[in-house]
Amino acid sequence: MKAMTIPATGEPSVLTLAELDQPTPGDHDLLIEVHASGLNPVDTKLRSGKFRAPVTFPLVPGFDVSGRVVGIGPEVTRFRPGDAVFASPPLFKPAAHAEYVLVDERLAARKPECLSHVEAAAIPLALLTAWELLYDMAHVSEGQTVLIHAAAGGVGHFAVQLAKARGCVVLGTASSDESFALLDTLGVDHTINYKSEDVEARVMQITEGQGCDAVFDLVGAEVFKASIPLVATRGCLGTIVGIPADAELNPLFLKSASLHAEFMGSTAMNGGTPAHQGGILKQAKAMVEAGTLKPHVSQTFPLEDLAAAHELQASGTATGKLVIKLRD
Amino acid sequence: MKAMTIPATGEPSVLTLAELDQPTPGDHDLLIEVHASGLNPVDTKLRSGKFRAPVTFPLVPGFDVSGRVVGIGPEVTRFRPGDAVFASPPLFKPAAHAEYVLVDERLAARKPECLSHVEAAAIPLALLTAWELLYDMAHVSEGQTVLIHAAAGGVGHFAVQLAKARGCVVLGTASSDESFALLDTLGVDHTINYKSEDVEARVMQITEGQGCDAVFDLVGAEVFKASIPLVATRGCLGTIVGIPADAELNPLFLKSASLHAEFMGSTAMNGGTPAHQGGILKQAKAMVEAGTLKPHVSQTFPLEDLAAAHELQASGTATGKLVIKLRD
Repeated sequence: MKAMTIPATGEPSVLTLAELDQPTPGDHDLLIEVHASGLNPVDTKLRSGKFRAPVTFPLVPGFDVSGRVVGIGPEVTRFRPGDAVFASPPLFKPAAHAEYVLVDERLAARKPECLSHVEAAAIPLALLTAWELLYDMAHVSEGQTVLIHAAAGGVGHFAVQLAKARGCVVLGTASSDESFALLDTLGVDHTINYKSEDVEARVMQITEGQGCDAVFDLVGAEVFKASIPLVATRGCLGTIVGIPADAELNPLFLKSASLHAEFMGSTAMNGGTPAHQGGILKQAKAMVEAGTLKPHVSQTFPLEDLAAAHELQASGTATGKLVIKLRD
Repeated sequence: MKAMTIPATGEPSVLTLAELDQPTPGDHDLLIEVHASGLNPVDTKLRSGKFRAPVTFPLVPGFDVSGRVVGIGPEVTRFRPGDAVFASPPLFKPAAHAEYVLVDERLAARKPECLSHVEAAAIPLALLTAWELLYDMAHVSEGQTVLIHAAAGGVGHFAVQLAKARGCVVLGTASSDESFALLDTLGVDHTINYKSEDVEARVMQITEGQGCDAVFDLVGAEVFKASIPLVATRGCLGTIVGIPADAELNPLFLKSASLHAEFMGSTAMNGGTPAHQGGILKQAKAMVEAGTLKPHVSQTFPLEDLAAAHELQASGTATGKLVIKLRD
């Protein structure tokens, strides 16, 4: 089968089209014919060597898949060949920028029928990240004020929709006209241009000096540090990037605040049960079909152009998601 | 009225018995005749200068009270003179190591009838701390494994009972025979002697290598840092002391873990609504009356011996709570 591989860390040009053996399903695996596979920051971090955990090269990236089941392991009970499914293939195994990928059936869910494979492939990793952060960790609830940095990004645009679905008042930062247009469509209550406005002043004006019940930093580093004063007493700060070593966290203690450090790959990395994430995707499918969740794909690429997709992903300028399309 | 005051930071000997004016209730205040008032680490931190937020001296410490309402402000609706109440008087105002104290009615709850004033005065600040940390922030739930450091201490023995009430499997550390006897009474599932045992090895053996769903550091500094490896994937670490500046928090991110920094004075410090804490005490009263929550008072002192109580509190060797008794 054809697969794009990262033979070693480097620039996007290191990405190499290779011919690999089609994999054989393990006991609980689905063999999925890949129709589309999304891109995420983890792809460019693995390629550039900025990923925080040890990995072995060469590797096949692509941690979102939507496709069709064409083979199953002997213990598989929930899916049959022919089923259309979507999932986030685990880190540390050959992933979905390839013609075929193996995914444990417990990680997978049926594809929402109203979505194309390209749209469904935009969901898994970013939605799981937003869901685990906002629902499992921060428990966002009705009436809370929620600030989402980079609200029009891959994780951001799902975070906005999850917060709105729970009845939160959502503040979102962005900078491009295209991003603000998306945020308007998603019903963000207050948009803030982080390039031209004083974010802290706007947040304090909107929240009448209280700060936000939840602040989600989807950018990292200086944005994390600048987020600390924006958290309300008994509020929380969430990150999907990590906690900067030089961040002064004592102000969070004096506000009795929580810090949530979400890494959706932690379960796979630490040998945890995959059923939790499969269950989230099943709930996401229901939200999509109910019209309360919709992925935004800003651009698709053929598998052979993965390097161009990496360039755009790494630029941080794309709204929503970039998706590799292999088949209709 | 008589009151013990801290005229300036220093040794326990700085504590001074003074004659102060009886205070006059503001709109929402109860004037409480103090029957008993508990001691907490915040008292010794204020006195020794180790408190993290700015305070003004002289001050009257004592942030737990059980007593009788003898006067009310014009806006008070829920209590009448004669009512027996308990509460945690707010930081940054004259507190309860005195014959009378003012408390906003929204912070107060009716004293559990089955408890003496001494027992009721052992509850507020420590119970509120444990409740906010375990229930509001960590959302401990049935079947979770919960490790509580210093489980026989003031906050610890309430944390144990709150975790047990939610159906958690509780691991508790302690070192003295008296502490282990208390932990047995409270139904701790696994006790660990942190002086004679390898805490990490015991925790990993008990949890089959997974770590605990929630680890509560009620000690600080080195105990905080040693707690990080004990947290399970998607678990949490809670502190009531603060986050050491030199703690390496990245392992929490790779486990997708949360960090909860509880400071029960944050609401008072930041001008938040007092009704939340009054509501918790009302629920605590119901648990006491249902037999699922019981304060442990290891020693009482007369007001004049507050310095001796401070010495014992600061030693860290007392189990449960120390209480100043002013009246029967």
